[in-house]
Amino acid sequence: MSGGEAHRVKVVKVLQSALAGNDAVAESLRRRFRAAGVFVVNVIGSPGAGKTSLIARTIERLRGRARVGVLEGDIAGSLDAERVLEAGAHDAVQINTGGQCHLDASMVEQALHQINLENLDLLLIENVGNLICPTHWDLGEDLTVCLVSAAEGHDKPRKYPEIFAKSDAVVLNKIDLMGLSGFDRPEFVRHVRALTEAPLFEVSCRTGEGVAEWGAWLLRGCEKANTSP
Amino acid sequence: MSGGEAHRVKVVKVLQSALAGNDAVAESLRRRFRAAGVFVVNVIGSPGAGKTSLIARTIERLRGRARVGVLEGDIAGSLDAERVLEAGAHDAVQINTGGQCHLDASMVEQALHQINLENLDLLLIENVGNLICPTHWDLGEDLTVCLVSAAEGHDKPRKYPEIFAKSDAVVLNKIDLMGLSGFDRPEFVRHVRALTEAPLFEVSCRTGEGVAEWGAWLLRGCEKANTSP
Repeated sequence: MSGGEAHRVKVVKVLQSALAGNDAVAESLRRRFRAAGVFVVNVIGSPGAGKTSLIARTIERLRGRARVGVLEGDIAGSLDAERVLEAGAHDAVQINTGGQCHLDASMVEQALHQINLENLDLLLIENVGNLICPTHWDLGEDLTVCLVSAAEGHDKPRKYPEIFAKSDAVVLNKIDLMGLSGFDRPEFVRHVRALTEAPLFEVSCRTGEGVAEWGAWLLRGCEKANTSP
Repeated sequence: MSGGEAHRVKVVKVLQSALAGNDAVAESLRRRFRAAGVFVVNVIGSPGAGKTSLIARTIERLRGRARVGVLEGDIAGSLDAERVLEAGAHDAVQINTGGQCHLDASMVEQALHQINLENLDLLLIENVGNLICPTHWDLGEDLTVCLVSAAEGHDKPRKYPEIFAKSDAVVLNKIDLMGLSGFDRPEFVRHVRALTEAPLFEVSCRTGEGVAEWGAWLLRGCEKANTSP
């Protein structure tokens, strides 16, 4: 027991030191994003919540109005970068974390070697599929967005409160499956509202429902980023 | 960059030492489980895959044939332990990890202070909702089970290969949503088979479909654990 405890404490200490190092890199990224007038959104959600689908839909929706770049975080493969390029992304870089359960700022910094920020209005960062670990890793983003799907059940805010409390927007995807999955919408909204006043968007990336409101909100963010000094 | 890299390397080193400490505790747990004749299953899946639902269904299915205990891992709350007790669990302990993204063997050891193994045939451990981090943390279990839902999409084995490759069984839940979520079953099976020869169970915890086969398979494991020296 005491052996196990000691190991756990050690991990936490190093994690805090790693987080502090991460925050410094994230701050320098934030300055770069601001200087380039690029609005940056960090999308966090479980495997299968629909992060790539939301990003693809967003790109389609904003076509002709915002040049969108994408950083795709995954533990393996390059499926997602291909998919968002097909959807019309202006640029996309796949980040393979090599098993790591979240993106960190230095991974984003490395990926930026392969992207020209001057050509973008909006940079969408798809984090690794994980509702827990990415929460504390600042990537220099303007907004953190928590994405959950109705198929995951209405109890997610109660079970994973940190990411909801921390997010600047909550997106509920797969609302077309709501009736079939026993999802209790009022309960979900009540639990979200107990944690945050952030806007809540309800969408179906399959049918396209709700994507217009979400896209309009993002566009307002982009416009602010472009006009701020 | 180099600062960020150094931090990452440090984390990995401590993690390896923590994993070695964990493995020692897990081995002692395994001996205790064997001595008590309890068959132990570690259920790993994303938030909303249906881990608690599968456990509740399994308990109902095995009623009168196996005494089932449950350890419920969550970062917050005690919702799940209440739910499985209602479903007829012989005993249940909620483990709150305090934000940690996976269970470890010392958490299980602590939880065992509150459970009498002699009264159980089967111990189901619900890991924290996370398809990545729990993969490497041995809990002394006989079987590791990977649970995914059809609503998460058929590409999950390609995107999270490690947990599939490591698991002793794969359970695909929410097959009642398959037709509605664009899930390509042959693709899913093909990707699973590229990673593992482990049995694949297809269930709907909502309708009960497929739970009988899964329950029968678990029961055979319990019987072996009870008869082995």
